[in-house]
Amino acid sequence: MFYMDGKLQYPVRVERPNPVFARALQQAIGGVEGEIRVCLQYMFQGWGARGPAKYRDMLLNTGTEEIGHIEMLATAVALNLEKAPLSFQEEAAANPVAGAVLNGMNLRHILSAGLAATPEDANGVPFNCSHVYASGNIAGDMLANAMAEATGRALAVRLHGMTDDPGMKDMLGFLIARDTMHQQQWLAVVEELGGYQAQLPIPNSHKDTEPHAQYAYAYFGHDMSGLVPSGRWTEGATLDGKGRFTSMRSEPLGEKPVLAPPRPDSGAQTDQVNAPAAANDPAMAQRGRSA
Amino acid sequence: MFYMDGKLQYPVRVERPNPVFARALQQAIGGVEGEIRVCLQYMFQGWGARGPAKYRDMLLNTGTEEIGHIEMLATAVALNLEKAPLSFQEEAAANPVAGAVLNGMNLRHILSAGLAATPEDANGVPFNCSHVYASGNIAGDMLANAMAEATGRALAVRLHGMTDDPGMKDMLGFLIARDTMHQQQWLAVVEELGGYQAQLPIPNSHKDTEPHAQYAYAYFGHDMSGLVPSGRWTEGATLDGKGRFTSMRSEPLGEKPVLAPPRPDSGAQTDQVNAPAAANDPAMAQRGRSA
Amino acid sequence: MFYMDGKLQYPVRVERPNPVFARALQQAIGGVEGEIRVCLQYMFQGWGARGPAKYRDMLLNTGTEEIGHIEMLATAVALNLEKAPLSFQEEAAANPVAGAVLNGMNLRHILSAGLAATPEDANGVPFNCSHVYASGNIAGDMLANAMAEATGRALAVRLHGMTDDPGMKDMLGFLIARDTMHQQQWLAVVEELGGYQAQLPIPNSHKDTEPHAQYAYAYFGHDMSGLVPSGRWTEGATLDGKGRFTSMRSEPLGEKPVLAPPRPDSGAQTDQVNAPAAANDPAMAQRGRSA
Amino acid sequence: MFYMDGKLQYPVRVERPNPVFARALQQAIGGVEGEIRVCLQYMFQGWGARGPAKYRDMLLNTGTEEIGHIEMLATAVALNLEKAPLSFQEEAAANPVAGAVLNGMNLRHILSAGLAATPEDANGVPFNCSHVYASGNIAGDMLANAMAEATGRALAVRLHGMTDDPGMKDMLGFLIARDTMHQQQWLAVVEELGGYQAQLPIPNSHKDTEPHAQYAYAYFGHDMSGLVPSGRWTEGATLDGKGRFTSMRSEPLGEKPVLAPPRPDSGAQTDQVNAPAAANDPAMAQRGRSA
Amino acid sequence: MFYMDGKLQYPVRVERPNPVFARALQQAIGGVEGEIRVCLQYMFQGWGARGPAKYRDMLLNTGTEEIGHIEMLATAVALNLEKAPLSFQEEAAANPVAGAVLNGMNLRHILSAGLAATPEDANGVPFNCSHVYASGNIAGDMLANAMAEATGRALAVRLHGMTDDPGMKDMLGFLIARDTMHQQQWLAVVEELGGYQAQLPIPNSHKDTEPHAQYAYAYFGHDMSGLVPSGRWTEGATLDGKGRFTSMRSEPLGEKPVLAPPRPDSGAQTDQVNAPAAANDPAMAQRGRSA
Amino acid sequence: MFYMDGKLQYPVRVERPNPVFARALQQAIGGVEGEIRVCLQYMFQGWGARGPAKYRDMLLNTGTEEIGHIEMLATAVALNLEKAPLSFQEEAAANPVAGAVLNGMNLRHILSAGLAATPEDANGVPFNCSHVYASGNIAGDMLANAMAEATGRALAVRLHGMTDDPGMKDMLGFLIARDTMHQQQWLAVVEELGGYQAQLPIPNSHKDTEPHAQYAYAYFGHDMSGLVPSGRWTEGATLDGKGRFTSMRSEPLGEKPVLAPPRPDSGAQTDQVNAPAAANDPAMAQRGRSA
Repeated sequence: MFYMDGKLQYPVRVERPNPVFARALQQAIGGVEGEIRVCLQYMFQGWGARGPAKYRDMLLNTGTEEIGHIEMLATAVALNLEKAPLSFQEEAAANPVAGAVLNGMNLRHILSAGLAATPEDANGVPFNCSHVYASGNIAGDMLANAMAEATGRALAVRLHGMTDDPGMKDMLGFLIARDTMHQQQWLAVVEELGGYQAQLPIPNSHKDTEPHAQYAYAYFGHDMSGLVPSGRWTEGATLDGKGRFTSMRSEPLGEKPVLAPPRPDSGAQTDQVNAPAAANDPAMAQRGRSA
Repeated sequence: MFYMDGKLQYPVRVERPNPVFARALQQAIGGVEGEIRVCLQYMFQGWGARGPAKYRDMLLNTGTEEIGHIEMLATAVALNLEKAPLSFQEEAAANPVAGAVLNGMNLRHILSAGLAATPEDANGVPFNCSHVYASGNIAGDMLANAMAEATGRALAVRLHGMTDDPGMKDMLGFLIARDTMHQQQWLAVVEELGGYQAQLPIPNSHKDTEPHAQYAYAYFGHDMSGLVPSGRWTEGATLDGKGRFTSMRSEPLGEKPVLAPPRPDSGAQTDQVNAPAAANDPAMAQRGRSA
Repeated sequence: MFYMDGKLQYPVRVERPNPVFARALQQAIGGVEGEIRVCLQYMFQGWGARGPAKYRDMLLNTGTEEIGHIEMLATAVALNLEKAPLSFQEEAAANPVAGAVLNGMNLRHILSAGLAATPEDANGVPFNCSHVYASGNIAGDMLANAMAEATGRALAVRLHGMTDDPGMKDMLGFLIARDTMHQQQWLAVVEELGGYQAQLPIPNSHKDTEPHAQYAYAYFGHDMSGLVPSGRWTEGATLDGKGRFTSMRSEPLGEKPVLAPPRPDSGAQTDQVNAPAAANDPAMAQRGRSA
Repeated sequence: MFYMDGKLQYPVRVERPNPVFARALQQAIGGVEGEIRVCLQYMFQGWGARGPAKYRDMLLNTGTEEIGHIEMLATAVALNLEKAPLSFQEEAAANPVAGAVLNGMNLRHILSAGLAATPEDANGVPFNCSHVYASGNIAGDMLANAMAEATGRALAVRLHGMTDDPGMKDMLGFLIARDTMHQQQWLAVVEELGGYQAQLPIPNSHKDTEPHAQYAYAYFGHDMSGLVPSGRWTEGATLDGKGRFTSMRSEPLGEKPVLAPPRPDSGAQTDQVNAPAAANDPAMAQRGRSA
Repeated sequence: MFYMDGKLQYPVRVERPNPVFARALQQAIGGVEGEIRVCLQYMFQGWGARGPAKYRDMLLNTGTEEIGHIEMLATAVALNLEKAPLSFQEEAAANPVAGAVLNGMNLRHILSAGLAATPEDANGVPFNCSHVYASGNIAGDMLANAMAEATGRALAVRLHGMTDDPGMKDMLGFLIARDTMHQQQWLAVVEELGGYQAQLPIPNSHKDTEPHAQYAYAYFGHDMSGLVPSGRWTEGATLDGKGRFTSMRSEPLGEKPVLAPPRPDSGAQTDQVNAPAAANDPAMAQRGRSA
Repeated sequence: MFYMDGKLQYPVRVERPNPVFARALQQAIGGVEGEIRVCLQYMFQGWGARGPAKYRDMLLNTGTEEIGHIEMLATAVALNLEKAPLSFQEEAAANPVAGAVLNGMNLRHILSAGLAATPEDANGVPFNCSHVYASGNIAGDMLANAMAEATGRALAVRLHGMTDDPGMKDMLGFLIARDTMHQQQWLAVVEELGGYQAQLPIPNSHKDTEPHAQYAYAYFGHDMSGLVPSGRWTEGATLDGKGRFTSMRSEPLGEKPVLAPPRPDSGAQTDQVNAPAAANDPAMAQRGRSA
């Protein structure tokens, strides 16, 4: 169960309202790198957590923090919109370059929300909860969370660079610091559980056995040249300590697939139903000249 | 530019077609943990890669491999559908328990695709490209890729457990092994670049400074009890080697936010426009009794 | 800012786990009538509230309650999934009617979530935040909220009827009672503000004037018969006390629209660009015979 | 069955085409507050109507009117686009401030539609039919309709304020008047059926009984301060005349939920499967210091 | 402007209600091959039509017919749902095979709609208006329409085969016949305008010139074998009568692309910013061994 | 299985980077007329192809070509973004008209992608794979493909007109020529299979019989005037050579539908359940006066 106090986790000030920056800030609310996503992701991971209960607690604590981050950003959007032009005529009166602000705005900030935030990204696309990754596998979830905070911090850093409003820079600086911690915290769980040696491959409850194990540590090259880009992923011990990296040129291990012809009553054309099975052979006899 | 040979990367056999398993397999094609996602994700990361060119090459090689994985799974779906009932009457004739198969099918496999795969997940929800994470930050992207392969391998393991068809188990075993490698490979890039010490926080081009740095390594407790779940994330050196974990009870650093009243011409009710600014104080004077 | 205590607002018990009912319960989590929607809706209305501050407070209190409702339902889904079959072979062993459970499940409960809830509806469609109505108009928002609770209570009543599990009936009974209150509470705000007389039309800051006011209280019939369905909406005083209802047969007040021909460089066919303006007249000279 | 005459319900004139206003008008076509939504909503409610047939008729008449509103707005968009720049070079030639118009346009108006309307909102997001609320409950549907017309009228008022084109103001004035009527008309049905006393709670076919009825008229405070925002919703008779409003501080009635550990074959990490059940207790022993 | 008479274009009878067939029928309402799509597509094409006015008329007439098709199908869904089980206990009582019907239903038919149709497809995915193709190019639109009717008729034929209910077969037979006509009608426009000779390539207002024209009639082979599948598309006169088909093996005409390194302030890792430009050369020196 | 060589199919040069044109180019990547769509469409058609194998080969060859088109366009977007302003302050310094570029950009190009392409359209809406039409009917699929290339070429022509950058015009000229070929190629398959005479109606495996055949070649007029727009579709032989076009005024062949009243336990209002069946008759007795 949840509680609130109506106060902001950190102060939100806007000295020079900028309605176009309000559009940009939406990415941190309803973008895939944003706060609705991490909030719901940590919550659903926590609510569905099986296994050690402390991870459930840890997830719900941080999920609860994230509600407050949405709140901060929604407040920032509303404050950035407070002097937005509501009409072409208002804008033309204030600004010799007609349209310079309305052009760059999320018009739903005016039309749908009355100068307030929406649960959308910077392009006005509503957040879609398919981005809530809660896999039931703690190591997979921790990577998903670290990734979310990595892209989230990249986003916040870019927003921080985009503005020179001191209040906005201060708020974003705080959010960036929290993202720093959150990256650490999810990866620390992996370390606590024994690190990559113990946790990889995910899920570690399934082992790769022959004939498939031979493909479990090999980088496959698909370049026509036969060259393979080399690096840590083509040599040395694997991160799980269970093998050594190799590389190989990928070649097909299977044949061309053969599907049954369509059934007469399946809505295909009669030509498909009646085709001879080997119809393709003569057709392939033509050799293309070079371009 | 790209090429094909029409063959399968690994053999795809179905001994006992199961149209309900065809529905399940769709998750590995068009689910958020599936192959369309990783294919496009590695491609877009590669096409937009700035910095060392070898990572671009590495990404495009593996993105190209993933097209072949979609191909394998699409073939597996088509083969699992080959004996599906096309009507209630056909099913009733074959099966004394009418509806047992049609109930569990993705009906679009019959109605829209004529017994072939669709770019959808196991619930028939089409893949949405917002899941293609390509952040322009290599460390963030590597975590996104490792996460995608972690949830992808969890999915493949669950599909592997769901079926006892030998052909399907063989194909899934191969895909699971490739996911093992792909998890390794993306995390190996982080290691090659210096590991967490060098790469965290992401982006490492932005430093946390005061007054915000004090929040960069602190776990915040939001539990009413004041207790904080402890673990690696509350003590010891941080993973980037730049500080030490602490924990604290989260308390608001900001005040209740105050937004300007709505403008008269902004589509609000007149009551909102005319409200006294401090209208809320008396209203809050009532203290709730306990539930 | 927000807090939690990890406890459930009301007990959640499942005596006979039913994985198909778990699918149904998802509608109350991620459906358009569900709890994620009302939670975010009240939050965004509160965070963007302009005018009397007490409504902001009222919204955030109830929005905070709703997080706990998602938590209860997510717990209920997880508990209903605890004995779900993970494979066709497991199901066949337990149940002579193979497929009866897997057919009816949201397969992502197994494949993506490891037997836990997802932020989706009963069809597995992820919640989309476009359903968060926060208009900046308090009367409009109160109707949106009352509507959400009306469809939400209808949903909860249907779920209550669908199961005979005593624990589930108890939990749903509580949620239904809360929906009763929430319907009341939002409509009570309209009453507090003077009821329909004062608040209609929404927004009440814009008056209908001539030549348009004549259309503001008239029901328009579009039935070919000329008959108009009559009722409270065709006679008597209007609900805002500002006029009287009438009805009329709708007839076009405008003409056929005329758009300019396409520009030569706009990507149209040349036939469109070169067409004579009145090309349609002769074509319409043919009178269709009756079917 | 349906018929047309090709004429507009009300004249649509544009004196000074404004392609950026064309983007704004899209919200009234394909936005969640727009005309496709109400058209389909009234139609689906009518087509699925069970109970008194006159409501079906009433719904279909108004649904039919709404098709004509989409037509008017689509015409308005096309007319506003007639002088839009098709290229950067055209715009630069006409306007010393290059980009001022193209920047603010929905580029799909040029690229996808050849200067015509699309079924999208002002951000270019396509309309999604999940917004068609047709619950099978007449009172719930009437609230949904009144809400749609309330947000629709707020939108139309905002569009009316955004432009000073006389033709557009005339068209919008007519649409605003129709929204006035439509708000009235749906709420008049509730009144005809006995008003809130008879219709609440929705659905009124389900009664709240003990032990849940005690929660049916109580406002729950979730504010840490213990204070509850007071108003009509905390005192006086309830709107259904069946009780009296109270308020209380919300406290958990349930305990921390306990889920079973993951099954060994469910794709979790082995650490989760092997965890001791009470692993969380010691972890919670640490008390956070204040922030 | 539009009108209705409340009657069905063709009789809709259901002799043996089948709630799972109701799920299947949804594809014809809200699927991408369904009636909402063609209805809105013809309307938006008509409303935005520039050039000969008779095509606008033709489009709007048929768009109006399609509303009636949605109505017929929505009625068919409601009738198929009339005896659906509302609960597990009801189903268990009626049917010794518990779950056989509820498993196969769109549960939103019960939970959200009260036994009526929804604007969704057979998987319960809501219709998304991005499928409304209205390009402003009449030849492109006619192909889009013919395609919609081709996939629509395939769908209707499959539904016709899926059921043996005489009423449903009769209704679907009528809809199939109308799809036959609609396929003809859109392609007849292309013929009226001069057929492929006059209308291809679309748009015919843009000519292919050198150096690009050499690629305008050549089939490109991307098969590693160098073989090209041959047919009408590799030999003979082109359909527009302006050239002859050839085929060639596709080879890259461009080089590897080189993007600038990331800017220091763009949110990349510092390693990316500082990378030497030719970092990839040595990495590519390793030749993969064959798989 | 698939391969790559890292080179571009055709050179991609940008002489004057234009970040707003980068937004426009996105339509050709992730728009419904774009390259992700045709790539996946041809692939899924190929992977699911039943019947003559050469069509599978032909589809996969061209699908493989299209991956390279996405690559070209993604490169073009990245190059157009290389001098984009990253902040309001940077833009203000470079340009006296603040906001002229940021206003018109897809801000996710900065915030989410670090100056690279995204799988979205020109409005920033992610590509949704529901647009991948693969019907299992070869004639339907060929029309779908021709349509995709027709709208795709219209889009490319419009982009070509929008820019005067020589490099972009060159690249787009090549893509336009390929679209010319691809239109031809899919329609050539229909010709190879016997043209419309043999292939219509689609699917040609289902014949229209009486009583429905009478509706298979008749254009239905829904215009209140009784006039029917005439053309090739109202007279002459039908395109399949099996009949002659006629036209008729559409009249209802069915009656008003009657649905059963709601069941008492289905979540409706009690007023609906208890309504007399013929409640609508008296209500319709009122005749509307003319507007």
